Amino acid sequence: IQVWEWWDAAQGWVAAALIGIITACIAFVVDISVVTVADWKEGYCDRSIWLNRRECCPVDKSPSLGVFGTCDDWVSWSGIPPSSSIDDDDLDLIPYTKAYAIYVLFALLFGLIAGFVTLTTKTNLPSVNNDNTDPTKMQEKGKVMYPTSGSGIPEIKTILSGFVISPSFLSPSVLLTKAIGATFAVSTGMCLGKEGPFVHISACVGSLVSKLFPKYRSNANSAKYRQLLSIACSAGLSVAFGAPIGGVLFSYEEISTYFPRRVMWRSFLCSLFAAMVIKALNPTGTGKLVLFETHYGVDYQAGHYLVFWGLGVAGGIYGGIFCKANFLWSKWFRKLGFMKRSSPVFEVLLVVFFTAVLQFPNRLIRQTGDIVMEELLVDCSHDGDGKMSWLCRQEGRTEEEGGKGLYYAWLISGTLVKLLLTIITFGCKVPSGIIIPSLDAGALFGRMVGQLVPGISPGIFAMVGSAAFLAGVSRMTVSLAVIMFELTGEVNFIPPFMVAILTAKWVADAISADGVYDLAQHLLGHPFLDSEHALDKVRKLDPDPDPGSGHKGTMEDLIPPANTMDEITLFTGPDFRVRKATLREKLARLRARGLMDAGLVLVNEACICHGYLPEAELEFALEVLDETRDEEEDDGQEEVDLWEGVVSEFVDRSPLTVTAKAPVEYAVEMFGKLGLRYLIIVEEETARVVGVVIKKRLLSYLDELR
Amino acid sequence: IQVWEWWDAAQGWVAAALIGIITACIAFVVDISVVTVADWKEGYCDRSIWLNRRECCPVDKSPSLGVFGTCDDWVSWSGIPPSSSIDDDDLDLIPYTKAYAIYVLFALLFGLIAGFVTLTTKTNLPSVNNDNTDPTKMQEKGKVMYPTSGSGIPEIKTILSGFVISPSFLSPSVLLTKAIGATFAVSTGMCLGKEGPFVHISACVGSLVSKLFPKYRSNANSAKYRQLLSIACSAGLSVAFGAPIGGVLFSYEEISTYFPRRVMWRSFLCSLFAAMVIKALNPTGTGKLVLFETHYGVDYQAGHYLVFWGLGVAGGIYGGIFCKANFLWSKWFRKLGFMKRSSPVFEVLLVVFFTAVLQFPNRLIRQTGDIVMEELLVDCSHDGDGKMSWLCRQEGRTEEEGGKGLYYAWLISGTLVKLLLTIITFGCKVPSGIIIPSLDAGALFGRMVGQLVPGISPGIFAMVGSAAFLAGVSRMTVSLAVIMFELTGEVNFIPPFMVAILTAKWVADAISADGVYDLAQHLLGHPFLDSEHALDKVRKLDPDPDPGSGHKGTMEDLIPPANTMDEITLFTGPDFRVRKATLREKLARLRARGLMDAGLVLVNEACICHGYLPEAELEFALEVLDETRDEEEDDGQEEVDLWEGVVSEFVDRSPLTVTAKAPVEYAVEMFGKLGLRYLIIVEEETARVVGVVIKKRLLSYLDELR
Repeated sequence: IQVWEWWDAAQGWVAAALIGIITACIAFVVDISVVTVADWKEGYCDRSIWLNRRECCPVDKSPSLGVFGTCDDWVSWSGIPPSSSIDDDDLDLIPYTKAYAIYVLFALLFGLIAGFVTLTTKTNLPSVNNDNTDPTKMQEKGKVMYPTSGSGIPEIKTILSGFVISPSFLSPSVLLTKAIGATFAVSTGMCLGKEGPFVHISACVGSLVSKLFPKYRSNANSAKYRQLLSIACSAGLSVAFGAPIGGVLFSYEEISTYFPRRVMWRSFLCSLFAAMVIKALNPTGTGKLVLFETHYGVDYQAGHYLVFWGLGVAGGIYGGIFCKANFLWSKWFRKLGFMKRSSPVFEVLLVVFFTAVLQFPNRLIRQTGDIVMEELLVDCSHDGDGKMSWLCRQEGRTEEEGGKGLYYAWLISGTLVKLLLTIITFGCKVPSGIIIPSLDAGALFGRMVGQLVPGISPGIFAMVGSAAFLAGVSRMTVSLAVIMFELTGEVNFIPPFMVAILTAKWVADAISADGVYDLAQHLLGHPFLDSEHALDKVRKLDPDPDPGSGHKGTMEDLIPPANTMDEITLFTGPDFRVRKATLREKLARLRARGLMDAGLVLVNEACICHGYLPEAELEFALEVLDETRDEEEDDGQEEVDLWEGVVSEFVDRSPLTVTAKAPVEYAVEMFGKLGLRYLIIVEEETARVVGVVIKKRLLSYLDELR
Repeated sequence: IQVWEWWDAAQGWVAAALIGIITACIAFVVDISVVTVADWKEGYCDRSIWLNRRECCPVDKSPSLGVFGTCDDWVSWSGIPPSSSIDDDDLDLIPYTKAYAIYVLFALLFGLIAGFVTLTTKTNLPSVNNDNTDPTKMQEKGKVMYPTSGSGIPEIKTILSGFVISPSFLSPSVLLTKAIGATFAVSTGMCLGKEGPFVHISACVGSLVSKLFPKYRSNANSAKYRQLLSIACSAGLSVAFGAPIGGVLFSYEEISTYFPRRVMWRSFLCSLFAAMVIKALNPTGTGKLVLFETHYGVDYQAGHYLVFWGLGVAGGIYGGIFCKANFLWSKWFRKLGFMKRSSPVFEVLLVVFFTAVLQFPNRLIRQTGDIVMEELLVDCSHDGDGKMSWLCRQEGRTEEEGGKGLYYAWLISGTLVKLLLTIITFGCKVPSGIIIPSLDAGALFGRMVGQLVPGISPGIFAMVGSAAFLAGVSRMTVSLAVIMFELTGEVNFIPPFMVAILTAKWVADAISADGVYDLAQHLLGHPFLDSEHALDKVRKLDPDPDPGSGHKGTMEDLIPPANTMDEITLFTGPDFRVRKATLREKLARLRARGLMDAGLVLVNEACICHGYLPEAELEFALEVLDETRDEEEDDGQEEVDLWEGVVSEFVDRSPLTVTAKAPVEYAVEMFGKLGLRYLIIVEEETARVVGVVIKKRLLSYLDELR
């Protein structure tokens, strides 16, 4: 018995550790596949086609310099000898064109694979934003959803806030297609990262693991199930960036709605196991967890804060423009007639084509995102001579060698190309994260700015710039600062990171109020209650509005029309017994309204609320009743006791109530902080039930206020 | 007008930045004072008495090695030539004894100063834990409180959870005495740190700054005021450790009850400004924010995780023993007759005497806590020869030179002495934090363990050990991991830190359920609602208990006795008007009950709740009424309209209600998450008011369950 109790308490921890381990293993496979597949765009290893370029030609010196070794084992498709592929200065036009064409063709092939893999998980969704007031909206029912596409983070946010999206969203098949799709999508060289998809993959692993533990199953205890998903999300970022603490904070700051301390501790364990396993498996070959380790030393002065602040402003502008432009692009381009008629794969191929054509000529951004980032952070003063990286040779050019004009042009055009491509890429129907492309754009811009600041390594500004640009796009703060120094190991640069991040967040908020994930949620039509945001909105409501608007800012606004109330009210009578036929009829009415999460409010003859029976529970209770009785006897006249027996287990005897005169603020706080699904509105004078609010109704009310 | 709106929105940010800057300046003064004053115990600088030893004799090499330079400017009291003061191997007995005696005397002198400074802020408190059921408790009223003593963190936790402790707790005079007291207390060499006091100082600064901004004043909007205090706390830890992100997370994880995103962003800014200013002021002379920077490289293997795990277990045992022993010590020793009669300064002097006598002989722990820590983290393999630190010379001893037996003995006895002294020190009536002594004990133990692990720098285990011991004592997790690598800059050691921290937390939780701050809150008798903990407790309540206990686990348990209900119920009549005399009488009755946060529940003739009027608001409303009317006319017969006019502003028209059959869990969630002050209990059948719960009543109910 003691052992059983102990096991019961330990389950959560075991589940967290298991999720971490499994996620790390999947991430390892994806990581090594991406590197090999991406290198196929340029050539293959003679010894074994499964080796990537770095493994094929090991580098002698610190790999943090980001230089590829060169050797005869690596065979380039175009026939350009590997030694000169590092330096494009004296290139021949014909092999260059050949390499270009092969690069584009491979990118298109990988894009095709990623696109088709994504299509396999197409799902039809019931409408989730149906507020019953507008009959035309009913026809939007049966929306199509591709669980594998995008980063998955907006959907996970919605699920964690208590809504059900689609049972298949976290299924093993989505896990598999997301892993394969992400591998090929990243390999195309498109402006997308595998970090968002990794978070989705880890959530899928969390959902799988929950099946092993009865008390965490989604149908047994949905709150505990969601907590396990929150925990799982931290593992995704932990393995994507080798940032275990950043993963926990990302889950807290960006993804989770409800994050009590107990969940934080388990996230911590989950993230730790993920990091330990990925470090032991060592996909990068460095044996380190830190992806982009740098050692600049502390040579920045107080005056440099101005530059960091300027990078923050630039990052904010970039993020603001990206959010606005991506939103408009999604609203406009994907609604064009020919785009709607053609398969989503066509859009993917278009984007891949543009990406490959624009990125190949620019040596700085030809590789996949993480290699681009690694190269941009090089500290040239530590770079050994003779083995100098391409970047350092460019920066070291004197006037006689042609100056740095071309290099500057590549940096600036690289930033703009990244902006343009990221805008059209995010939202494509392939697995796509936004984190790495934003870091790349920031690093390009920062490196450029660094050229203008004398006496300090320009890599420092590349590093701070990348943090600023990502802050502008995602609006992360604390978690981003932690991720940045878990990525670079630069603990001395925490204040610069913080300056840039906070400035970028302010500027971006001023340009576009919502971050990229919030906009994506809105675009995808997923309901989400951001209680802090909503509170600000309802607090601003005028207490004495003009009568036309109809928004008084009190709970009266949320009282449903009388006929709706008739349908959802169930009179229990003095002995709390109702006929089964009544229950069936009420259920049928609720279903006819198309809502999935309505319910019946039970009232006595004085119209005082006695309980609440949610729709899903009512349905389940009736099924159980049918099983236990003989069907022949069942004429529906039989009475069911609501206070005792089978049905009573499903009745919430103490639903929370609030008076009709209370401000809407109360409802927002209670739904947001207590995680309520429904709230009863009572008349102030008599405590009679006058209405019921469900979460979706509150959300559509908040939308009206926008 | 636009400018005004902009200023209104920017105020919170400006206040946060201001708090950060002021806190950093105060911390700078304390930091440099401590170093100089502490060094006076051993000698003085000939050039200027205000210079500390390190400034007097600058070291040529990296100060992270923790070796003092030696020069003729530094004059030792004992006459021991400075060069040999580093090495105690060949010491003469007479100058040694002289140095010992002077060390102890100076320590006692500093202890005396710290003790008397602390006494100056003595305050009498009204009883805060008065549950009205036990008349003997009424006599505990008038408890004495020393706001300057201790770390201040337990009190701040209580304040942030919504209780009022004492208006003087965050006053400027407490700020001043805490700063002076902390300087001298740390200088004695006692086992206490300045980190907790720094958090208290930053909270005082927050309180001061709030006076500049009308909307943040405590009497204008206590919720916003508390948010500003949450923000301020992050600055305290930020300057204490040079850990800006750690500060934010500490405020979130350990101190704050309510920490929405907006508060997090402002904490981030506050913490950032504090870090930037302290870095620019440069109290350590290194120009770096990272206090104990080390560069071990990544030479730990998977097998070493076992050692890290073992350190975690040790840290957990240490923390558990410390919490239990310190609690018992406080309960027993301070209740002894002669201790109660004598001044608290006597206890301080006793502790200082023991500390000085025990610590001087052990070269490892003779200095103040942060220097001890710095020396223990030395990486001897990087240590240049000839300038070797004392520690490295000990570790490098061969058998012929006498072996390392004595060194081992110093390490082990050092750990035990730290444990013993910390137990008797924490809770003394001087400003005292627990963080640095725990880190020291862990570093001593870890260094010891490191001697037994071949082929890896023992400093690594000192570092991980210190994290483990602090985790055991304080039960911090994420914030501690962040603080540890902001302290050391060792991003590669995040997984070992996490392993040790989580293990230590588990083990310590098994030994003593509450961390040191929770125990201190309990000891000091401060009310605090830890809603997660409380939820666990009420969920375990047996739904069908034996009738004797009386705890059904439903709201019925919390219904006050009938006579109490009579006193706190106010019948409003059909026109919502009551006589002023009635209000006065009710107020007098509430006062007579000795409660400060009760209130009146307004009911109509059907006994339906119509509103709530808290005691403090009632008092204020009556004062306002008295001011506006002529006193002569006032016979108390005049009727006051509760729905309109002056009094109505103070009436909460929509207090939240819950039925008597609802589980207590509901009340805990609502008080904890919504920050309620009162909750109305209504009868299920009729919605009549049957009771009112205030937060203190809920807390005393939860205490009964213990």
